[in-house]
Amino acid sequence: MKLAEVLLGPALATEDDKAERIGPAKGIPIFGLDALSSVAYGPEAALTLLIPLGMAGIGYIVPISASIIILLTIVYFSYRQTIMAYPQGGGSYTVASENLGVWPGLLAAASLMVDYVLTAAVGISAGVGALVSAVPALDRYTLPMCLGILVFLTLINLRGVRETGGVFLFPTYLFVACLLVAIVLGLAKTLAAGGHPVPVVAAPKLHGPVEAAGAFLLLRAFSSGCTAMTGVEAVSNGVMAFREPSSKTARTTLTIIVAVLIAMLAGLAVLVRAYGIGATPPGEPGYNSVLSQLIAAIAGKNVFYWTSIGAILVVLSLSANTAFADFPRLSRAIAQNGFLPHPLALRGRRLVFEKGIYALALLAAGLLVLFGGITDRLIPLYAVGAFMAFTLSQTGMVMHWKRVGGRGSRRNMMVNGLGATATAITVAVVLVTKFTEGAWITLLLIPGLILMMRSVKRHYNYVAREIETRAPANAEDLRPPLVVVPIERWHIVTANAIRFAWTISPDVRGLHIECEEDTEDLCRRWAELVEAPAKQAGLPAPELVLLKSPFRWVISPIVDWVIGLEKDNPDRAVTVLVPELVESRWYYYLLHNNRPEILKAMLLFKGNSRINVVTIPWHLKD
Amino acid sequence: MKLAEVLLGPALATEDDKAERIGPAKGIPIFGLDALSSVAYGPEAALTLLIPLGMAGIGYIVPISASIIILLTIVYFSYRQTIMAYPQGGGSYTVASENLGVWPGLLAAASLMVDYVLTAAVGISAGVGALVSAVPALDRYTLPMCLGILVFLTLINLRGVRETGGVFLFPTYLFVACLLVAIVLGLAKTLAAGGHPVPVVAAPKLHGPVEAAGAFLLLRAFSSGCTAMTGVEAVSNGVMAFREPSSKTARTTLTIIVAVLIAMLAGLAVLVRAYGIGATPPGEPGYNSVLSQLIAAIAGKNVFYWTSIGAILVVLSLSANTAFADFPRLSRAIAQNGFLPHPLALRGRRLVFEKGIYALALLAAGLLVLFGGITDRLIPLYAVGAFMAFTLSQTGMVMHWKRVGGRGSRRNMMVNGLGATATAITVAVVLVTKFTEGAWITLLLIPGLILMMRSVKRHYNYVAREIETRAPANAEDLRPPLVVVPIERWHIVTANAIRFAWTISPDVRGLHIECEEDTEDLCRRWAELVEAPAKQAGLPAPELVLLKSPFRWVISPIVDWVIGLEKDNPDRAVTVLVPELVESRWYYYLLHNNRPEILKAMLLFKGNSRINVVTIPWHLKD
Repeated sequence: MKLAEVLLGPALATEDDKAERIGPAKGIPIFGLDALSSVAYGPEAALTLLIPLGMAGIGYIVPISASIIILLTIVYFSYRQTIMAYPQGGGSYTVASENLGVWPGLLAAASLMVDYVLTAAVGISAGVGALVSAVPALDRYTLPMCLGILVFLTLINLRGVRETGGVFLFPTYLFVACLLVAIVLGLAKTLAAGGHPVPVVAAPKLHGPVEAAGAFLLLRAFSSGCTAMTGVEAVSNGVMAFREPSSKTARTTLTIIVAVLIAMLAGLAVLVRAYGIGATPPGEPGYNSVLSQLIAAIAGKNVFYWTSIGAILVVLSLSANTAFADFPRLSRAIAQNGFLPHPLALRGRRLVFEKGIYALALLAAGLLVLFGGITDRLIPLYAVGAFMAFTLSQTGMVMHWKRVGGRGSRRNMMVNGLGATATAITVAVVLVTKFTEGAWITLLLIPGLILMMRSVKRHYNYVAREIETRAPANAEDLRPPLVVVPIERWHIVTANAIRFAWTISPDVRGLHIECEEDTEDLCRRWAELVEAPAKQAGLPAPELVLLKSPFRWVISPIVDWVIGLEKDNPDRAVTVLVPELVESRWYYYLLHNNRPEILKAMLLFKGNSRINVVTIPWHLKD
Repeated sequence: MKLAEVLLGPALATEDDKAERIGPAKGIPIFGLDALSSVAYGPEAALTLLIPLGMAGIGYIVPISASIIILLTIVYFSYRQTIMAYPQGGGSYTVASENLGVWPGLLAAASLMVDYVLTAAVGISAGVGALVSAVPALDRYTLPMCLGILVFLTLINLRGVRETGGVFLFPTYLFVACLLVAIVLGLAKTLAAGGHPVPVVAAPKLHGPVEAAGAFLLLRAFSSGCTAMTGVEAVSNGVMAFREPSSKTARTTLTIIVAVLIAMLAGLAVLVRAYGIGATPPGEPGYNSVLSQLIAAIAGKNVFYWTSIGAILVVLSLSANTAFADFPRLSRAIAQNGFLPHPLALRGRRLVFEKGIYALALLAAGLLVLFGGITDRLIPLYAVGAFMAFTLSQTGMVMHWKRVGGRGSRRNMMVNGLGATATAITVAVVLVTKFTEGAWITLLLIPGLILMMRSVKRHYNYVAREIETRAPANAEDLRPPLVVVPIERWHIVTANAIRFAWTISPDVRGLHIECEEDTEDLCRRWAELVEAPAKQAGLPAPELVLLKSPFRWVISPIVDWVIGLEKDNPDRAVTVLVPELVESRWYYYLLHNNRPEILKAMLLFKGNSRINVVTIPWHLKD
């Protein structure tokens, strides 16, 4: 518990919940980090696909970015409406379940879960990618660094949301400031040079074209670039976390995030073309991220460059935090509906949904290990989930306005319908163009998750039906249980168990597995140790049952015998007393065999509802 | 259980023990593998230290090997006597404890434990080293290969000793045959060439001397070379495993092992000098083991070379098996005396001491990971433990003969005394020459182990004293326990627990942690659900106790309240009934919170001997 307090802070009471609400200044880092930081991998992902086109490919980044910005604007207006309509937090899951039904809701839930796990993994791996392009010698430590950052994020989030905002405030604003300064400076230089600025540090030479531009290649580049839009839905999920009036605060936050994102995407596209900067092959020696090349070209490798790289590293890694803020909330909502295990809905000691944080951390770690921590290998899996959730959420909003009706509902339906259509087309484009590269994994994963959620729900329903009763407790024909005390040797612990047995039932049996040393002694003294005191107290004399065991096992003969006893007495409960030494230090348990634990577990699993187990502790002093 | 049977074979009954006895043909691979295979790293370790002397250094291998052979002969005669005197298995631990007392016995035990762990680690790492010198591309997989072999050995040994002998028979004899053929061929070529044979494949050129030979360097080389002697004591430890007459069979086995070992050491020394072969720096690219160089020089890189390398690889890796044969027996003997945890003395399902096998595997894995699987880094730790055990064993034998007396006892004392003196000097030499390189680790480890064993023993004595009683069970003033049933909601599981409570005591209380949803319903219906049936059956109406919990915890309020109840009723036992759902599949448990388990554990640890816990299972159908 000491370690937990140092790492996670003291426990918080439920009433502290209100105090954890935030405003836009903190909301931008917490819910916008993912969206903002994705400018560091979105354009790069598009440019990576344009590598085969050589210098000619770079030109295509401007129309591709323009399409992405248009799509982003549509999605922005759609989500403004969602925030107003769902002040309790209008995640795609909530909106889709409420307006479209259970199955679309589960589809949204599964898409979002996949999306969040990828947000965590891609954010971290892109951050480490930025560091590796600045310090190539770190290349071989890519995966360990990714996992280290993941552990750090997990700990930060287990502490709770208020502290999290504090940690992320400074790097986020530093990142935005650095990028905007670089963009303004670059644009000024470009204008001054009539569109052909001279780079301070020249970018690596591009290879000549090995391919001509085709529609499919450009669509693939667009799909990859769309990852720059992921994270925009985060604010609508977390409306409840904002200060009152929370809908308005959330909308302001979303507006600022999207405006900054558009400015950065547009600026980067123009400058990348002006400076003639292309992507370098990821995961190979000599890799240098597009932002690193661009900032070096605009400003040189000076203090500003290193500050920017530092901010990019930190912000990208921490952008994964958006997933940590939202995944546990999402899985809580799903768990409350019974589609995910209930423990995900329990608040932990710091008012956060600990189990959800652990689940996200484990899943993201699995992805990072599987793909070696290389961003570019994760990108094709990304975007499907995010855009699927966009589509379902906007479609749900259309149904919402239809149902609600009233003034402006037609206009609102139009806005959300446009959003739904645009994002649905994008899902199709991403699926087709990225299918063989990894989108098929997402396509398998999402139905898999949906089936899992269905069977979780079915099991909960089954259990609830099985144990449901309005009937009172039954107090008729009460008979004391048949008590069985397994005995290895005679000592205080055994004597104590026998005494307790007498307090709950007159039907007591000792049970002993024969072995060379102890059996004779126990049989010889049974009359004196147990039978005599029983007779004196007017109780029936307990029998000592001896069992043989040709294999050196003691557990299964006891379990088998107890089950037999229960079968022979269908009208009685059978109670097995397991005497157990309780040591003052955990490591003393290494000195004892764990037979009592195994015996108890076996009796529970192999037994039935009429066989119960009593642990009779004997506490040793320290 | 299915997986266990595939991996480990069906369980064996105790009577099968006799059938597991072996003769020399199987005894040589099982108990001699370590000793025999050490020719592959002993001479190499000595030559590695002679690298700085250049070509001149190689000449020193002959006198160094001669000293080792003399020492080996002395030790051989000493151990022959030990085998005769201790037909039940005269490990250094047994001999030292019986003849020298508890502390020297523990010193021997600790030395041997360290020795066996190193035997396992060095054997495996040297085997992988042989493979790496034949296939340099595998260099980067050194550690994973080491750990893979360790897992394989662990599984083999969990199956039991008879199968183990079968697995190791062929490679051992192939190894011995290859080495003897190479030596005879090499000696013939050397004689034919008048002492200056022409190598078929020339060994790598040696660097010129950078140092002159000094006494300290030569002593260090001797210390390293002494690792070739480790494992000689194995036969005397395992006399019981041999066929009747077991002492005689064991002696024959030891004689064959030592004779072959001497022949190989002598042959290698002569040939290494004749062919001018030196060691290559270990752990660096271009590493090529001495045996690999020598066989290539004598016979060329043909089928014979690859067969030999294969046999060396397998045998070296499996030489670790000697440790797996002996470590569990040793730790069992120590555990039976109460100096190590008792579970180490329990035979498992295949009549082997499973816990000892697991312990050895874990410790060896730790060493391999710590030292990256490089033999040469492990060598300095080695030999201290082995020779310390030799010394204690021989000293113990001197005391043994002194006590026994009779014909020949003076001669026997002389033999063992000579052995003790020679090995004690070697311990001193190894400690001084290897101190800074790692022998200090062993020097810390051994007293640490001794202290640990003392405190284990002390704790067992304490527990035995605490629970010791000859008094009969107490049947006076029996009163039924106060029964507490924690209740979350009303369902069949709860109703069943209440019913059981009434069968064991009239004093029943329901205990409920207040929460928004369920509290009101439960309070309103308590009279109807519980009080009414109790009254009808003539029992006192159970009280429903409500507890508040500002933190969202349910466990600690219950535990605190139960402890309070126990304090208020010093003459009664308190029994807490914990209703628990038993699911048909383990993975269903992921769907439930683990509160029942935590509650039970907390009640045991925070409670005392008057608070006991009943698990009331409710079995769900599949």
